[in-house]
Amino acid sequence: MTARRGDAISVNSDMGEAFGLHTFGNDPALMGIIDVANVACGFHSGDPGAMETTVALAQQHGVRVGAHPGLPDLVGFGRREMRLSPQEVEDLIRYQVGALSGFLRKHDLPLNHIKPHGSLYGMLARDEELMAGAVRVAEDYGVPVFGIAGSAHQRAAERAGVAFVGELYVDLDYDADGGLIILRQPHATDPAKAAETARRALVDGVVVTVAGTELPIEFGSICVHSDTPNAAEVAAAVRAVVDDA
Amino acid sequence: MTARRGDAISVNSDMGEAFGLHTFGNDPALMGIIDVANVACGFHSGDPGAMETTVALAQQHGVRVGAHPGLPDLVGFGRREMRLSPQEVEDLIRYQVGALSGFLRKHDLPLNHIKPHGSLYGMLARDEELMAGAVRVAEDYGVPVFGIAGSAHQRAAERAGVAFVGELYVDLDYDADGGLIILRQPHATDPAKAAETARRALVDGVVVTVAGTELPIEFGSICVHSDTPNAAEVAAAVRAVVDDA
Amino acid sequence: MTARRGDAISVNSDMGEAFGLHTFGNDPALMGIIDVANVACGFHSGDPGAMETTVALAQQHGVRVGAHPGLPDLVGFGRREMRLSPQEVEDLIRYQVGALSGFLRKHDLPLNHIKPHGSLYGMLARDEELMAGAVRVAEDYGVPVFGIAGSAHQRAAERAGVAFVGELYVDLDYDADGGLIILRQPHATDPAKAAETARRALVDGVVVTVAGTELPIEFGSICVHSDTPNAAEVAAAVRAVVDDA
Amino acid sequence: MTARRGDAISVNSDMGEAFGLHTFGNDPALMGIIDVANVACGFHSGDPGAMETTVALAQQHGVRVGAHPGLPDLVGFGRREMRLSPQEVEDLIRYQVGALSGFLRKHDLPLNHIKPHGSLYGMLARDEELMAGAVRVAEDYGVPVFGIAGSAHQRAAERAGVAFVGELYVDLDYDADGGLIILRQPHATDPAKAAETARRALVDGVVVTVAGTELPIEFGSICVHSDTPNAAEVAAAVRAVVDDA
Repeated sequence: MTARRGDAISVNSDMGEAFGLHTFGNDPALMGIIDVANVACGFHSGDPGAMETTVALAQQHGVRVGAHPGLPDLVGFGRREMRLSPQEVEDLIRYQVGALSGFLRKHDLPLNHIKPHGSLYGMLARDEELMAGAVRVAEDYGVPVFGIAGSAHQRAAERAGVAFVGELYVDLDYDADGGLIILRQPHATDPAKAAETARRALVDGVVVTVAGTELPIEFGSICVHSDTPNAAEVAAAVRAVVDDA
Repeated sequence: MTARRGDAISVNSDMGEAFGLHTFGNDPALMGIIDVANVACGFHSGDPGAMETTVALAQQHGVRVGAHPGLPDLVGFGRREMRLSPQEVEDLIRYQVGALSGFLRKHDLPLNHIKPHGSLYGMLARDEELMAGAVRVAEDYGVPVFGIAGSAHQRAAERAGVAFVGELYVDLDYDADGGLIILRQPHATDPAKAAETARRALVDGVVVTVAGTELPIEFGSICVHSDTPNAAEVAAAVRAVVDDA
Repeated sequence: MTARRGDAISVNSDMGEAFGLHTFGNDPALMGIIDVANVACGFHSGDPGAMETTVALAQQHGVRVGAHPGLPDLVGFGRREMRLSPQEVEDLIRYQVGALSGFLRKHDLPLNHIKPHGSLYGMLARDEELMAGAVRVAEDYGVPVFGIAGSAHQRAAERAGVAFVGELYVDLDYDADGGLIILRQPHATDPAKAAETARRALVDGVVVTVAGTELPIEFGSICVHSDTPNAAEVAAAVRAVVDDA
Repeated sequence: MTARRGDAISVNSDMGEAFGLHTFGNDPALMGIIDVANVACGFHSGDPGAMETTVALAQQHGVRVGAHPGLPDLVGFGRREMRLSPQEVEDLIRYQVGALSGFLRKHDLPLNHIKPHGSLYGMLARDEELMAGAVRVAEDYGVPVFGIAGSAHQRAAERAGVAFVGELYVDLDYDADGGLIILRQPHATDPAKAAETARRALVDGVVVTVAGTELPIEFGSICVHSDTPNAAEVAAAVRAVVDDA
């Protein structure tokens, strides 16, 4: 199911990560640029009001909506690993996906996919048994999971016959082994550099690691983070590359 | 839609109000007695693991499952009123009903109804505009709301054409106006007294208030609280009366 | 204990209302302008890391630090009233004041005062019994309470012999009875208007209500909100008026 | 500072782990038996009301009170490891110790010690840098830390010149290396076995590991868990051994 060069590649972004009075990111600007929104579900950020606002905004822009479940850690924004059992992982993903589905039902939108957030994403990339819980929820909803090609994300999905969409990250660094370097704090990304990363991946099928080496990458969607100050510029630059390809 | 004497009357109970390591109530014993479970959805109590366990248990016993959304107040167990806007009420009910639906999907169970919990129940009984939010969620899911006949619960449901099921409470007192006296702490109920309350309501269509007066009551379901030490005895006594009727 | 015209009037602002990755307000700019910081304690906003950062920043600027305890409602930012018992109010204020004192101890700062936040502030202004809990905590720490002169804030403090500091608000409106109109969302304030409000209060001892009437006001501190985009400008304008007086 | 055989050995237990309406453990029975209470501070369990009740109960029984700070994880009861920075660990311990100190101030009790809870305890036993944060808080309050002799608990304390009290556990198993095996769920302990463990440790200075080997142990306090059904019996059996020694 991993999209290859030539297929339609989507641009996705994490949306709805406001929390109460705390605004976050650049959702209104990004919704006009991206194809797919990964909507926070209240555990790492987001709240019922933010979810309603975000799903309504996605619908207005014709953006497809997936669930972006995170670890139960608001202060850490889901970026502090927790030792969880496979059952706990499945239950907390199921809870959050279900919660989002309530808002999708209101706006007559289908669930598009499931993409775990932050440290949960990283934990599931390394542990097929943990990822199996996410995959079971995706199977129950008949949707693909988003993740890193070649990781436990993909292996668990394929083992269960669940669709998998590999992601390219244009605003995170890849370590020498192809692993993503996930930071606790957002940092600005150079739009030109992000566009070049997207172009190399689309045209040559590779990413350049922090070690300077090139690694082959398979992907069906490009993730642009929403929480950098210039996220909309980065997204627009990547959008242009994708539309050209 | 309010059931009247002669119709099939169900027995319902709040279930799944454990929280993490904190057990609560008498779910295993009650599931063998009741018809309908109102399952806590994580805001006043309950958590993803408790919801999975509770829905699985209900399915094993053939108990129908409804959502029991509460105020976002774990320490207060949803029993401290909060001043919320109609939009906030709708969003938090939608979130919780959706979350529960994730577990129902796993166990191939339909959502049976929505019944607000604790102070949210009381707030919605008095305020038709707030109740309208709960009713919209129920409409989206095609399920009835449970509530107090004659209150804003029923008026908002009927105005929207959403099915309403009135409840009889056998372990709470009714004030002179027919309002429920909701306590912060559970207290033991005399099973014989609860059975007599059920019998009077079923046979004569009345409840006796704390003022000693009789008020007519319409109901389709009898609620037995799960958090008293002898909840199973109370439920069994009420069950016997219902089965006789 | 209410300061009168001629006494040294302080400028105070709510600080430390960030939450995890969510920044908030304009703390660094304001700390150079204000005399007194009301530091959020984690219930309506703030978290242990934000408290450490905020207390350290206050110390660097020679700003005095008081506790700003709020209702236990992160999503509502403490701006949704809750029905709490006097014991609950006292316990949650005591918890939050104590939590802040841990950071003050590290930075060798004394606790300066207690000022309840948001809806808790409003609830205590109307209910002397609830305010008595805040006053008991203040008494245990030997510090004054900040509040609205003439309200239950002042009455409960004076009844217990606890020091009281009345506040003037330059960026909220006063209703015809002298009550504050507290909003859920921040809004921009005209610095010149805020300065004029401060000047009238300092010079003439009055505030102008939304009804256009003038009411006498007694105060020892002027509150400038930190969460408007131009909070630093407002604070600087008020600072200038205070320094002139 | 580790107490050795012959010194006065205290019996300690975790107290105040109720949460809202959820009762927990056997505090009233245990307070009459133990010397030292480790009081939960609201992150893994406990809440402001429970803390007030628990500190008052301890004072009535002449039980000394220490802080029992945990990870910010109510659903996991602080028993799921989280990856935290040293600064985060120090901040969250400081917050919780401060919060408890508010209740101690009311009841004129000094803070007796700091003992981390659950997985935080385990994390700090293995990582001297994380433990250093707990030690700095203890230093600021002038109190000892409780922990496992020979672990990072003790090393970090001694490096900073902070008093350390080693603990013996009579209701947890020791692995072959002397590490504690911490379970997610409480289990019943045989009082006679616990008493024998206490006796061997007091008389012979050893614990028997799950591998059947004996390891030397230094301790100044014996911990009895409060959350097993027969906790009071276990505590009484251990109390008798300690009083005999």
